[in-house]
Amino acid sequence: MPDYELFYWDLPFRGNFIQLFLEEVRAHYQKLDASELYPDRNLNLHYPGMAPPYLYDRRAQVWFAQMPAILMHLAKAYEYLPDAPEQQTLALKVILDCDDVLMEITNHNGMMMWDQESWNDFRAHRLANWMTLFERTGQSHSLKTDAGYLLGPRLTVADIATVALFGTLVHSFPELAKDLEHNAPRVANLCQRVEGRPAIAAFLDDQRRELGNGYCGGQIEQSLRDVIG
Amino acid sequence: MPDYELFYWDLPFRGNFIQLFLEEVRAHYQKLDASELYPDRNLNLHYPGMAPPYLYDRRAQVWFAQMPAILMHLAKAYEYLPDAPEQQTLALKVILDCDDVLMEITNHNGMMMWDQESWNDFRAHRLANWMTLFERTGQSHSLKTDAGYLLGPRLTVADIATVALFGTLVHSFPELAKDLEHNAPRVANLCQRVEGRPAIAAFLDDQRRELGNGYCGGQIEQSLRDVIG
Repeated sequence: MPDYELFYWDLPFRGNFIQLFLEEVRAHYQKLDASELYPDRNLNLHYPGMAPPYLYDRRAQVWFAQMPAILMHLAKAYEYLPDAPEQQTLALKVILDCDDVLMEITNHNGMMMWDQESWNDFRAHRLANWMTLFERTGQSHSLKTDAGYLLGPRLTVADIATVALFGTLVHSFPELAKDLEHNAPRVANLCQRVEGRPAIAAFLDDQRRELGNGYCGGQIEQSLRDVIG
Repeated sequence: MPDYELFYWDLPFRGNFIQLFLEEVRAHYQKLDASELYPDRNLNLHYPGMAPPYLYDRRAQVWFAQMPAILMHLAKAYEYLPDAPEQQTLALKVILDCDDVLMEITNHNGMMMWDQESWNDFRAHRLANWMTLFERTGQSHSLKTDAGYLLGPRLTVADIATVALFGTLVHSFPELAKDLEHNAPRVANLCQRVEGRPAIAAFLDDQRRELGNGYCGGQIEQSLRDVIG
């Protein structure tokens, strides 16, 4: 029996934040399709959660929803948090920033489709600012262009989240690699280093062979491809 | 010198999550207008944060962004978290759920205005489901219609957040009180009990005298008033 069950779609988008972490710590987990819970059972879970991803923690016998909460739960269990309380808060803040970027890049889960003009504006300003924000967070600590991590000398959950965001983004949309390199060279390098860690590399290799450059799916992914391509 | 500085607009929306907490624990804090930091200085903070609210923790000498991170930081400092690790995760999950409802009720920070049909549908289904979700979370623990709290017998940050969400909502839009009473009677009662706690009651009394039923401001608040009224 696995220690964890992760319910998400066959897409990297929000699921890879958790899956990269589970791979990094070599957790014993099973990935299941979100449709087993959502949308029919999600309000009837012991602790109901509105949307995937869901993590079932078998030892605690608890279902969790909300990606940032799941990731903080795992980070605590596997000691992937920074030591100081302020830095732990900052780790959560980084994960929440990542989640905001996911929202924004999909135009709020596909609430509207991108058009060329709105995308160009988003890419040149807001997305560039987000990249800058992550870069400066790393600069305040020990992130260098070839060593160190976002919140200090040790790999933490904040790095996993940052790489799940930007590493996935530039894999799925290689045209954006130069944006990241320009606005956040240390983060770009961090993505390569973390994606190269043995367990994560093996996982991504399999996943990318299977899913290609799939990102968030649906019409909004197509809309992104139309405006980026 | 205050221990904390909170930067937000003169609106309850996301700021009251933090301010209700600071009042409850009788923290020594100062409320400042978000325009002192945003949008000109936010990317130049030591730990840059994209949008208000911001909290400056004078003892730690750190700026924090992201409401859920700020609230978890304060909850840890003032021991307003449940005891068990799983319940601490759940407290964060509840705060994140609250933040999602804020997003949804403002149509993603006013990305689109509400029209009558889309609002009616949201109110009847999605908003009702959110209320049900909070009610069932409380039912899994000791929340009763006249006693107990969302995650157990003790008041935690999850209650403060839930009340900052639904208490504020039904104050600002009294027409929604019957929705909450119908879908989440225990949560409705929790709002009344927590809003009645001495420090919070005194704060809300002042705030509501000053701001009336102001909620999130801008065109989106007007759009909400048009479709609810």
